[in-house]
Amino acid sequence: MADTSPMDLYESLEAQGGKVRALKSAKAEKAEIDAAVQLLLKLKVDYKQTTGQDYKAGCPPSEDAAVQDNGLAADGADEADTVNPWDVSTTNAKGVDYDKLIVRFGSSKVEKELVDRIERVAGQKPHRFLRRGIFFSHRDMHQVLDAYEKQKSFYLYTGRGPSSEAMHVGHLIPFIFTKWLQDVFDIPLVIQLTDDEKYLWKDLSLDECHRFAEENAKDIIACGFDVNKTFIFSDLDYMGSSPDFYRNVVKVQKHVTFNQVKGIFGFTDSDCIGKISFPAIQAAPSFSNSFPQIFKGRKDVQCLIPCAIDQDPYFRMTRDVAPRIGYPKPALLHSTFFPALQGAQTKMSASDATSSIFLTDTPKQIKNKVNKHAFSGGKDTVEEHRKYGGNADVDVSFMYLTFFLDDDAQLEKIRQDYTSGALLTGELKKILIETLQPMIAEHQERRKQVTEETVKQFMTPRPLNFNF
Amino acid sequence: MADTSPMDLYESLEAQGGKVRALKSAKAEKAEIDAAVQLLLKLKVDYKQTTGQDYKAGCPPSEDAAVQDNGLAADGADEADTVNPWDVSTTNAKGVDYDKLIVRFGSSKVEKELVDRIERVAGQKPHRFLRRGIFFSHRDMHQVLDAYEKQKSFYLYTGRGPSSEAMHVGHLIPFIFTKWLQDVFDIPLVIQLTDDEKYLWKDLSLDECHRFAEENAKDIIACGFDVNKTFIFSDLDYMGSSPDFYRNVVKVQKHVTFNQVKGIFGFTDSDCIGKISFPAIQAAPSFSNSFPQIFKGRKDVQCLIPCAIDQDPYFRMTRDVAPRIGYPKPALLHSTFFPALQGAQTKMSASDATSSIFLTDTPKQIKNKVNKHAFSGGKDTVEEHRKYGGNADVDVSFMYLTFFLDDDAQLEKIRQDYTSGALLTGELKKILIETLQPMIAEHQERRKQVTEETVKQFMTPRPLNFNF
Repeated sequence: MADTSPMDLYESLEAQGGKVRALKSAKAEKAEIDAAVQLLLKLKVDYKQTTGQDYKAGCPPSEDAAVQDNGLAADGADEADTVNPWDVSTTNAKGVDYDKLIVRFGSSKVEKELVDRIERVAGQKPHRFLRRGIFFSHRDMHQVLDAYEKQKSFYLYTGRGPSSEAMHVGHLIPFIFTKWLQDVFDIPLVIQLTDDEKYLWKDLSLDECHRFAEENAKDIIACGFDVNKTFIFSDLDYMGSSPDFYRNVVKVQKHVTFNQVKGIFGFTDSDCIGKISFPAIQAAPSFSNSFPQIFKGRKDVQCLIPCAIDQDPYFRMTRDVAPRIGYPKPALLHSTFFPALQGAQTKMSASDATSSIFLTDTPKQIKNKVNKHAFSGGKDTVEEHRKYGGNADVDVSFMYLTFFLDDDAQLEKIRQDYTSGALLTGELKKILIETLQPMIAEHQERRKQVTEETVKQFMTPRPLNFNF
Repeated sequence: MADTSPMDLYESLEAQGGKVRALKSAKAEKAEIDAAVQLLLKLKVDYKQTTGQDYKAGCPPSEDAAVQDNGLAADGADEADTVNPWDVSTTNAKGVDYDKLIVRFGSSKVEKELVDRIERVAGQKPHRFLRRGIFFSHRDMHQVLDAYEKQKSFYLYTGRGPSSEAMHVGHLIPFIFTKWLQDVFDIPLVIQLTDDEKYLWKDLSLDECHRFAEENAKDIIACGFDVNKTFIFSDLDYMGSSPDFYRNVVKVQKHVTFNQVKGIFGFTDSDCIGKISFPAIQAAPSFSNSFPQIFKGRKDVQCLIPCAIDQDPYFRMTRDVAPRIGYPKPALLHSTFFPALQGAQTKMSASDATSSIFLTDTPKQIKNKVNKHAFSGGKDTVEEHRKYGGNADVDVSFMYLTFFLDDDAQLEKIRQDYTSGALLTGELKKILIETLQPMIAEHQERRKQVTEETVKQFMTPRPLNFNF
C-alpha cells in the first residue's frame, strides 16, 4: 500500500469506518466485527506512515501532510489522547504519546540516570519494567531515594478498582512491579480496593462490589505478596473500621473544592455527590497516619505510589493538598497502559472480553485469543513480510512480550527478526503464547492456594513486621 | 409613636440603621451597640404595626401600605425569611412566618387533631411544645401513629452540630421533646453529633470538633436520657467503626447529584467537596440498618426525627432518596426556632454570647442577661405600659416562658396581664429569671453527675434494651 495516495487511503478509511459502524449497529457476529476493526486499524497505521498524521474521521489529509516525515503526529492530533481514570484512548497505533503526557501532567521522565540510581540503591538489577520504560514517569523519586540512603524508610501504596471478578494480565502490571519494589527495598505495602468507587460509578450493588474486592484480593495475593508486610483493604470495610482513615478523608475533603475536582476529573453538576467527594478516599492512603496499626500513628512516613499514569489526577490533587494539611506529598512511579489485544489505541479492558487475556483463561483460550485478536504489525502475505519486515512498534504481541519476557537479549533478537521479516507474525504470536500460557497457569496454581483464611489475614487491620 | 407617619418612621429607621452600622464598624462598646440595635428593633415593630409591612432598608413604605390592616406582611417580604441549616433570619419581630414556611417546605401543620391523637395513642397529656405549637410542623406523623397502633414500633433520631463547648438553652428544645417522646412511646433513640460537619464548616481542628462533641454529649445526657435506650455518636468515631453506616452514606451519595444539593442547600462550585457530600452523612441515621447493633440488621424500622425546621432540607433530601434505595422515608416533627435575646428576627446563637443564655450561666448572669438584653414588647414608660399594655407576641421573655413554663393557666394569665398592662416588663422578666435559674441550676447539677465513663457508655455502639 506504500504507493497509495493519502486521499485514497483517507477514503478507504472512511469506508472501512462506516463498515465497522454498520456491523456494530447490526449486531453482527463478533468475529466479523473484529476482522473489520483489524482492517480499520491496519489502514490507520498505513495512513499514519504515509501522511505523518493521525487519521481523524471527517478530516481529509492536509496539503502539507505527506511532506511531514518526522513520524510524529501534528501537535493538535496527539493532544487528543484521552487519559483519565475512566478513559484511555488515542488515535495512534503505537499508543498514547507518553512524552507529551509527561509535559501535560507535569511529571518527570524516568531517565536512565534514575534507573541506574535505583539499581545502586537497591543493589539489584532494575526490573524489566524500569529497563524498558514501562514505568516511564515519576514524581519525587530522587527525594525518596535521598531519604532512603539516609535510613529514612518509606512505604508503598497501590490499588485496584474491583469492577468485576475477572482480572486480566494488564491488571498485574502494578502488582508485579510493586512486589519487586517491596522485595528490593523491604518496606510496608498497602493495597486499596476501591469497591465504594465501583459502586458509585457502575450499575452494581454494594455487595457485588465488595465481593469483587475479595475475589480480586485473591489474584493480588497470588502475585506473591508477603502477609507480614502487606495490608490489603476494601474501602467499604476499612472506612468503617478506622476512624483515623476517615479523619484523613475528611481533611482532604475540606481542602478540595468542587471547582478543583471539576478541573481535574471533569465532573459535572449532574454527577452524584459520592463521585465528587470520592477522590479524597483514594487520596487518604497516601498519608501514613491512615494506618496507625502499621505506622504507630506517625504521619510523616513517605509514601510511594506505583500506578498506571491514568491514576495520576488523583495524586496530583493529593500532592496539592498534602502540605496544606501537614503531610508529606506522596511520590509516584507511573506506568504506561497495557494495550488491548486489538491495538494500543486503548488499554486492555475487563469489560471487553475479546480485548483481554484473563487470569482465568485456559491455555487454549490464550492461544485462540492471541492468534485471533492480537493486532499484528506484520504484512499481509508471507512474501511481503519476508521482503519488507514487520512493524514491532504497533504489534501487540511484541508489546506484550516487552511486558512479560524478562530476557533482554532474546527480546531484542525477536524485535530485529520481526523487523527484518525473518520472524513471521505466526511465529511471534507463538512465542507470546508460550510465554503467557505457563505464566498464567502458574498464577492460577498460586491463586488456588489462596484460601478465604489467607484473604482474611491480608485484609485484617494489624501491625506489619516493621518498626516505625 | 402611634401617630407618627409611615414615612417619618421609615426615615427614623434608616437613620437608626445607619447608626448601628457606624457603631459596629467603629467597633464601639458592646453595650452601646446593643442599645442601638434594641431601638432599631423597636422602630421596626412600630413600623410594622403602623404600615402592616416589614421594614426593608432602601424601600420606603408603599402608598397602599397603611391601609393594609391584616397584620400580615406583603408576600414578597415574608418570602425573604431565610431558613436553612446555617442561617435563620427574618425582618419580622414575631419571628419567622411558620405557616408560610409549611407551604414553602411542603410539610404539614401540626393540627389540634394530631395533638389529640398523640395524646390518645401515648396515653399522656401532650408535651407543652405540642400544646403550644412549638413543634408546629410534621411529615408523616399519622403514618407513624397508624403503625404504632398496629404494634409496629419506630425509633427516634435527633442530633446536634457541636460547634463549641457552650450549649445554650435553645439547644435543649429538641432534646427535651425527644426525651418526652422516648418516655411516652418507649422506643430507641440515636443522637448524631456532627463533629465532621463542624470541621468542614468552621475554622476548627478535628480534635476540637471531637472534643466539643464529647462535651455536648454531657449536656445531652444531663437531659435525663436512659443509657439502655439511647445511643449517642460522634460522626468522626462512628463512621470509622461501622461499615454499615458507611454503606448507607455511600448509597445516599450515589443517589443525590450536585445539582440537587445545590438546589437544596445553595452550595456553590467554590464549596469544598466535604460540604457537598456531607448531607448524606446526616441522612444515613434515618435508616435503621445504619445501626445493626440496635436493630439486628433490620432496614425497615420507621424513623421519626424531631428537629428544628432549619434542618428540614437534609430530610427532604433523605425522604427523596429513601424509596430509591429501598428504605422507608423518615417522619419528622419540626420545631420553631428559639429566639435570640434581642428578638425573634434570629435564633439564639452560641457564637454570640449576648444573644444567648448558656447552660453554664450562673443565676446572676441569667438575671443580668434577661434584664439587659431580652427584647421587650413593653412600652417606654410605666404610665404608657399601664395605659396601652405590652405586646407579648414580640416580647422575648414571654416567648421563653412559652418554652419553659409548663403551667398553661399561669402562662395565659401572664399573657393577659402583660397585654392589659397589669404586668410590667420588669415583673415579666422576673418570672422568666425565676423560671430559668432553677432549671439551669438543676441541669448543671445533673451534668456534674455525668462522668467520662457515662459518656463512654452512651457513645459505645451496642445493643439497646429493645428486641428487633
